Parts: sequence; structure tokens; C-alpha cells
Amino acid sequence: MLKRYLLAPGPTPVPPEALLAMAMPIIHHRSPDFLPVLESAKKGLQWLYQTENDVLIICSTGTGGMVGAVNNFFSPGDKALVVNAGNFGERWTKICAGYNLDVKEIKIDWGYTVKPEEVEKALRDDPSIKGVFVQASETSTGVYHDIRALASIVKKYEDTILVVDAISALVAHDLKMDDWGIDVMIGGSQKGLMLPPGLAFIGVSEKAWAFAGKATSPKFYFNFQKERESLAKNQTSFTSPVSLIIGLNESLKILRAEGLENAFRRHEELANATREAAKALGLEMFTRESPSNAVTALEAPTGMDGQEIYKNLRVKYGITAAGGQGQAKGKIFRIAHLGYAGTFDVITAIAGVEMVLKGMGHPLELGTGVAVAQKLLMV
Amino acid sequence: MLKRYLLAPGPTPVPPEALLAMAMPIIHHRSPDFLPVLESAKKGLQWLYQTENDVLIICSTGTGGMVGAVNNFFSPGDKALVVNAGNFGERWTKICAGYNLDVKEIKIDWGYTVKPEEVEKALRDDPSIKGVFVQASETSTGVYHDIRALASIVKKYEDTILVVDAISALVAHDLKMDDWGIDVMIGGSQKGLMLPPGLAFIGVSEKAWAFAGKATSPKFYFNFQKERESLAKNQTSFTSPVSLIIGLNESLKILRAEGLENAFRRHEELANATREAAKALGLEMFTRESPSNAVTALEAPTGMDGQEIYKNLRVKYGITAAGGQGQAKGKIFRIAHLGYAGTFDVITAIAGVEMVLKGMGHPLELGTGVAVAQKLLMV
Repeated sequence: MLKRYLLAPGPTPVPPEALLAMAMPIIHHRSPDFLPVLESAKKGLQWLYQTENDVLIICSTGTGGMVGAVNNFFSPGDKALVVNAGNFGERWTKICAGYNLDVKEIKIDWGYTVKPEEVEKALRDDPSIKGVFVQASETSTGVYHDIRALASIVKKYEDTILVVDAISALVAHDLKMDDWGIDVMIGGSQKGLMLPPGLAFIGVSEKAWAFAGKATSPKFYFNFQKERESLAKNQTSFTSPVSLIIGLNESLKILRAEGLENAFRRHEELANATREAAKALGLEMFTRESPSNAVTALEAPTGMDGQEIYKNLRVKYGITAAGGQGQAKGKIFRIAHLGYAGTFDVITAIAGVEMVLKGMGHPLELGTGVAVAQKLLMV
Repeated sequence: MLKRYLLAPGPTPVPPEALLAMAMPIIHHRSPDFLPVLESAKKGLQWLYQTENDVLIICSTGTGGMVGAVNNFFSPGDKALVVNAGNFGERWTKICAGYNLDVKEIKIDWGYTVKPEEVEKALRDDPSIKGVFVQASETSTGVYHDIRALASIVKKYEDTILVVDAISALVAHDLKMDDWGIDVMIGGSQKGLMLPPGLAFIGVSEKAWAFAGKATSPKFYFNFQKERESLAKNQTSFTSPVSLIIGLNESLKILRAEGLENAFRRHEELANATREAAKALGLEMFTRESPSNAVTALEAPTGMDGQEIYKNLRVKYGITAAGGQGQAKGKIFRIAHLGYAGTFDVITAIAGVEMVLKGMGHPLELGTGVAVAQKLLMV
């Protein structure tokens, strides 16, 4: 028996309360039994999104939410400014281009974040840009973009909205949708919300809803205006993924008991401990600035293959972390501290990394990183 | 305590084996752990679909699969022939029209099926029709269209494919995809496959894949060709709904143990017993011909409201059946015998209907229908 530990940046472990609730017998999505379930989920998501506006619930992965955002708020030919700082920024470009938007990219070297001034300049140069697309946490590189600063810039442009992929940032970072003025914010179930994959969430500002009224492309499954009407009746337009929404209420209950600020702080502390422990082992952060609280991206020591480290963690020790994506493949490995994560997930990760690296011939003293994490996480 | 019984045409009850398997800790969709899981699901679906071609697995409701089928195999301006015999036929029209196909409808009175000759005539009159869209089981009226006959007609037209919404028919009816020549067949998890909502399945013939190569509309989330490439590697393009796919393997295991023919026969016998019992109670079938094995649609006795019958079943007896949809709302109520269903689901349904109708003042002898169902289901 090799005991398993899931430390990947999604899907993430699901707490037993949610697993068991989802194992309850199915209820019907159009029966009165389900209305309070959806109403509670809806209110919980507004709390989590820090918004009074609608947060739609769609049956799809997070990517479905991204596609829906492009298709519901924009039309072919509309100008899109994409912050492309990694694999998921790249995805914004592919979706926008695929739906025939006129895409301009701000391309950022992997490991770095966008400078808000760059977005400001792009908008000043061309105020006809309709949408600014960005990740909050770019999972492939482990950076967190300064969403607050970006929102304060985009807010000044009447005909521009800010579309944030917050899929891996939700719960790990404070994202004040209404206060900051984020227009569209996309989440997914299998990250900080500690649920199985299957739900996308889309928060929508009033400013963005006005855009939706003008979007011309065909839409049927991801039809946000229809979903908004359904949501007002505590329903979804098509068959509700009832089990996942029941699980969502359990996750939200756990998070409400913890408190939003505490949840953000927990992620920050776990991420910080992971980074400091890695540093103590002489590892380089792949993330050069503004590290995300969701995932830590570390460079493989010189001469070592990041995929090999990932593989050894899994095969030798039962730890499923993550390797690199795209241009970072082989160069890095990534450890998540996201969702249902606590102190001893970090200890496990760092201890496992030490043992794998030592096994691969990297000179280090076992326990060095662990001790640093222990010190930082002691209460 | 009011014990609950779910007898709606989707979502349907989930067997405990699947519920428990889905409550197991999450595994990562890109880890080698998951590859055999998806491979097994893939093979099981081919067995269920009676096809050697690909059966794609997408994270969405069945409607997502329908939208994907329209968008992946057709382009704006393409001619579509839609069999509209109810609420879901209507949905084909809405999707096709929404994606700017040139839609011609064969409109059928609710409760009746399409005559294959009508489709034959339409294709003879206009062989440039690219797609024929139909439901196998039209859940709103309880009819089963003669898919075998339709396939044998469409097969003769090189430039036409048959797209079948088999969402509620799958497992309840024998649908020989390869033998009959069905080109695109869409299923969903929450019906005969007795899983929570969240998965759409799309079987695709070689003939249909050639159509996919020519479709011009933007697609990203429902990109069937990409999903085909992913499936060849035992993956899905985006985060796999790992829990549901694990549950799918459990459902498929149960069905394999039962055998396909036996599963079809079980549904047929349950449906038949429900109909005969209803007849013994003097109830009229809303379905005038070719009743589906998935759901029985019954007219409310004269002067009674079908929604009231549905409501009394639920409120007084804890039975969630279904009312009517669209133009049938108020006129009918529906009882499903779909998926994880057996003899005593029929007995429960009929006994409950008897008690509700008697309570509403309808003259009947309690037990009359039940006895008929008992007689038919004795072994």
C-alpha cells in the first residue's frame, strides 16, 4: 500500500463533509427540495466573490466559464487585450482569437507579472479596447497579477471591462469583486472550493451585463443572460449538477466557519512556508515576483528534470504534485497549497521533495526545509 | 419523516456502488492513476453505444452535447431537418436556428412519432439537407421514434448525417449505433446511466467525423476533434470530471453484469407494467403511439390538473415524479422507470398514483393498478 497525497493545483482534495453530502441520494433539480439548496449556494458564492451581483453556476470546467465570458460579453471584431503570462494567459488568447475577437497581447516572460502601467498605456493608446483579460493566479508560473490595480485602471474606461480568470485564485487570494470593480470573475469547483471538477462560476458586474446585451455571437449552453434569469428563480437553465451544488454548500459552510480573511491568511501562510522551506533547500523559485498563494513553482536544480522530480514524488512517495506546462515543462515542478490544505500538507510536500532530491543525488541535509516550515507554521 | 422516492425522468437515483465510489478521495486527471479509469469508461461506453467509434466524454449536461453536435458538424447556412415532436425536439430547432443553420421542421402533434416516410420525402425533395435531428425518446411526450428506420433512410444520403438525442433513451432502448448507422448519438449521465448530472456523451461515426472537418463555427470548449485527440490518449481536453467518470465505471460495471439485452428488457417490462396498470385505473396514455421505455406520460383525468397530481405525489407521499412541459403542462403527469429502477419502483408509483387520484376524488378501487403491475412483474 502506497498512501496517496494530492498536492496538485486542481483538482484538490475534497473534505469528507462534502464527499459524504454528495453521496446522498439524488434530489430533483426542478423540485422545491432543490430551490433552497441553490439559493444557499448562490448566496454563499456572493459572499465568497464579495459581490452583490449575480454569480452564475454552470455545469462545465472552468474553461467553459472562460469561453462563455468571451462569447457572452463580446462580439467578433471587438478588441481584446490579453495579459499572456503563461499557459492560461495563452488560453485567453486562443479563446478570444477562436471567437474572432481582435486580440492584442501583452506578453510577459514566464515567472513575471504584468505591470499595471502596461495595461494603462495600452488602454490610453486605444480606448476602443472592449475587454482586458487576465488571470488572477497564473497556475503555470505561480504568479499573482495585481488585480486590484488592473481593476482601478479599467474602471476609468466606460467601454472596457476587466475579465479575470480567478479559477485557481478563488479562496487563496482576497478578490474584492465589487469594491475593486472586477467586471467578470470566473471560478471553478476543483480548486480553492475543494470540490470535484464540474462547476464553473461566473461573477458579473452591472457594467458587464450591459455588454452582454450587445454581444451577437450564437450561444445556447453558455447563455449567461438566460442563466441569470434562471438564477433569479433559484434554478439553472439546464439540468442542475445537483450533487456538486450540494457539495458546494458544504464547502461554503466550512469556509464561512473559517471566515474569508482567515482563509486568505491560511493560504498565504502555507504558501509562504513552502517558499521559505524551498529556499532553505537552495531551490530557486520559478516565480520571479508576486508569488501566488495557490501554488509554488520551483525550478529543478541544475541538471535535473522537473518531470522526474514530479514522477518520483508520485511513484516513490504517493504524492501527486505537478510538473511544468508548456515552455516550463522539465524545468520546474509545482506544489499546491490550495483548498482543503493545512500545515501538514506543506510538511509532507517539503519532506517529500527533500527525500526525492536527495535520492536523485542533490546535496542537502534531510529535514532542513521541514524545520523552516515547522518554525513558520507553529502556533 | 417523509421517505423520498425519485421517479423522475432524470436525474434518476444513483446506485450505492456509484455513490460510494464517487465519495472516494479525488485523483488527479493528468496522473497515470486516471488513465485506466478513463480507458475503462471509454470502452464501456463503446459497449453501451454498440459502436467501435469514439464516444466522447464532456463535462456538461446533455444539452451541452446537443449544442456541441450542432456546432461541430455543421456550419451557418447548412440545412437542418428537425423532427419536432415535443419539448426536446423544439430544443433542436432552437439550437440549430441559434447557430444560424437553415432549419426545416417536421412538426409532429405531441404524443405521436415521426413517420419515417416523412423524413424520406423531405430528403428526396431536398438532398442538400446536411443533418436530420431527432430524439430517440422524446421525454416530454413519452414517445420513442423509430431510430432504426430513420437511420436506414439517412444512410442512403452521402451528404446527410443523423443526429440522435438519445439522452433519455440510452440504456432504456436498444440503439445499435454501428449496425443501424446512427451518425451522432448524444447521451447524458443522469438518466439510464444512473449517475448525477454532469457528463455528456457523444458517439460519432466516421461519416460524421468527415463533417466535423468542414464545420467553420468557432468552438473551444465543445471542440469534438480536440476531444477525440485527447480521448486517444485516455484523457479529456480540459479538467476531467474525475468523480463522475469513476462513478460511470461503477454504473457500467452494473450494466455489464446485467447484460445489455437484459437492461433493455427490464426497462421494457417496467414501462409495460406501468402502462397496463394505468390502463386498469382508467387512465389515458398521453403517448398515442410507440411509447418510450424511459418514461410513461399519462393524461390527468378530466377536470383534474396534472401539476396537482405531481404535487400531491410529492407533498403527500414523498414521490418525485414529473408534471408536464410546454403545451402539456397541467394536462399530464409522467412517471419514469429509468436507470436504477426495478419492480417495486413501478409498484410504488402506481400505488402512489392510486392514492393521490382517490384523494382528489377520482373514482377507483385502491390496488387495481397495483395488482396488474404485480401480475406482469411476477417471476
